[in-house]
Amino acid sequence: MNKIRLVAVVGGAECSEQEAVWAEEVGRLLAELGYGVVCGGRGGVMAAACRGAANAGGLTVGILPGDNPDEANEWVQVAIATGLGEARNAIVARAGVGVIAVGGEYGTLSEIALALKWGKRVAGLGSWPLPDVFAAESPAEAVRYVLSGVDL
Amino acid sequence: MNKIRLVAVVGGAECSEQEAVWAEEVGRLLAELGYGVVCGGRGGVMAAACRGAANAGGLTVGILPGDNPDEANEWVQVAIATGLGEARNAIVARAGVGVIAVGGEYGTLSEIALALKWGKRVAGLGSWPLPDVFAAESPAEAVRYVLSGVDL
Amino acid sequence: MNKIRLVAVVGGAECSEQEAVWAEEVGRLLAELGYGVVCGGRGGVMAAACRGAANAGGLTVGILPGDNPDEANEWVQVAIATGLGEARNAIVARAGVGVIAVGGEYGTLSEIALALKWGKRVAGLGSWPLPDVFAAESPAEAVRYVLSGVDL
Amino acid sequence: MNKIRLVAVVGGAECSEQEAVWAEEVGRLLAELGYGVVCGGRGGVMAAACRGAANAGGLTVGILPGDNPDEANEWVQVAIATGLGEARNAIVARAGVGVIAVGGEYGTLSEIALALKWGKRVAGLGSWPLPDVFAAESPAEAVRYVLSGVDL
Repeated sequence: MNKIRLVAVVGGAECSEQEAVWAEEVGRLLAELGYGVVCGGRGGVMAAACRGAANAGGLTVGILPGDNPDEANEWVQVAIATGLGEARNAIVARAGVGVIAVGGEYGTLSEIALALKWGKRVAGLGSWPLPDVFAAESPAEAVRYVLSGVDL
Repeated sequence: MNKIRLVAVVGGAECSEQEAVWAEEVGRLLAELGYGVVCGGRGGVMAAACRGAANAGGLTVGILPGDNPDEANEWVQVAIATGLGEARNAIVARAGVGVIAVGGEYGTLSEIALALKWGKRVAGLGSWPLPDVFAAESPAEAVRYVLSGVDL
Repeated sequence: MNKIRLVAVVGGAECSEQEAVWAEEVGRLLAELGYGVVCGGRGGVMAAACRGAANAGGLTVGILPGDNPDEANEWVQVAIATGLGEARNAIVARAGVGVIAVGGEYGTLSEIALALKWGKRVAGLGSWPLPDVFAAESPAEAVRYVLSGVDL
Repeated sequence: MNKIRLVAVVGGAECSEQEAVWAEEVGRLLAELGYGVVCGGRGGVMAAACRGAANAGGLTVGILPGDNPDEANEWVQVAIATGLGEARNAIVARAGVGVIAVGGEYGTLSEIALALKWGKRVAGLGSWPLPDVFAAESPAEAVRYVLSGVDL
């Protein structure tokens, strides 16, 4: 039975074109390496990461703030409607073996902070410049950094 | 892109042989019909339902109370470690289009109650005899009842 | 420093006159005995229990489903707006040393079930007839039952 | 009936002497102005803020990560044991009309981030240097800043 390891991809529900390109590439790379993407299930960075992963045959999981699974973006395959509001950010941060942050504002920062508190690796692409966030120069570098901390 | 609809299967982390047989059959039927199983990710009924689903090629999702995805039973493919304790029961009940309860004690009852509050169909196999829980006589009947309430 | 022990009072956001009378009396008795009332913070049974407690000089805590503390009924002194939706029921059930259920439907049942799972005493006044729920004949009996299980 | 408005005081479960002095003074000032303190209920900054508030006759509320109210520091009067782990940070951040952060590491940062996302005022004393966090030079300044954003 294959347990599918997940990497959290976090970022804004609206994002720039550059961020969407990065997120989609992150999703694609994770899928090609056999990892699933877990995210907040909405638009922007989340949708781009899911699109990249799903188009490459990967699994996509969306942990939604609301109570309706239909709020998920169209590339989410497994939609978990939590009804918890932004408290669901804690679940997204927990659910990944590591976190890749693409841009993002305060919601994203809350996810980064919790992941770091829990000792997870966090890579950022144009994201918050925290000391413990690895500032990646490309999606490939972000993926490499996060996965190098995973026990196989 | 295939969105995978989930049905929640709930019941005790320890269970009787009869309950395990029922749960495994429920999981198998759901998988054959193209539905995923979402559950609390632990042993007993949850493990049996996941085993049935996974062996039939279905997707299995475990919403765990603790913070370690390795606490999931071996047939869970997507383990979401919430760290929420039993408050995660609310997420399990929300995540399914309906709920099938196999036996179960008070944790299971909390999931049934929330699902009914949210207007979801709940079928029981040897479970709590509530007025709005359909007392199914077989796994097939439980699955039929729950899915007959789903908009396609 | 006085730590204030809380008893959870649970029941419908709409209720009958009889239920309101019972809940108000429960709140009053708890306050007179030095206990605070914790509840879901809304109307019906919750408002009546808070009214009874507050009018007798007791402390009232409302654990709200939404994100706005102004949604609390007017007798809630400490409003905790969780934003968790009905997942907040788990917090209400946890927060009391025991639970008194007055009437109530499925939301109430989820709180009773979790409290019983956690080994707390639950008394009911016209509430769910579960084997481990003490069917009290009066508010005083309900209060006595729940508090007799509390270590002083 | 007096509804008690709460201000969240956040910071490390261990802290420096300077941070403890600041937090205690923040608690005292809030109490004198008629506000309650809501916090994570543990030691360090949380304990110091509660001590300051309680000694000045104020109300103190602790939203605990675990399931045992006895884990609260001794100056918490109302202990809400959530069992939610660090997901309870979201409730702390929501429960205040504003947030005062004293020092703090990643858990604190997650609370600051959520509070800012929700449009609340956040003042910091030796805390995270974010653009939207007001860097206060004294407890009085922190309290003034946060309360100046509250509708009376």
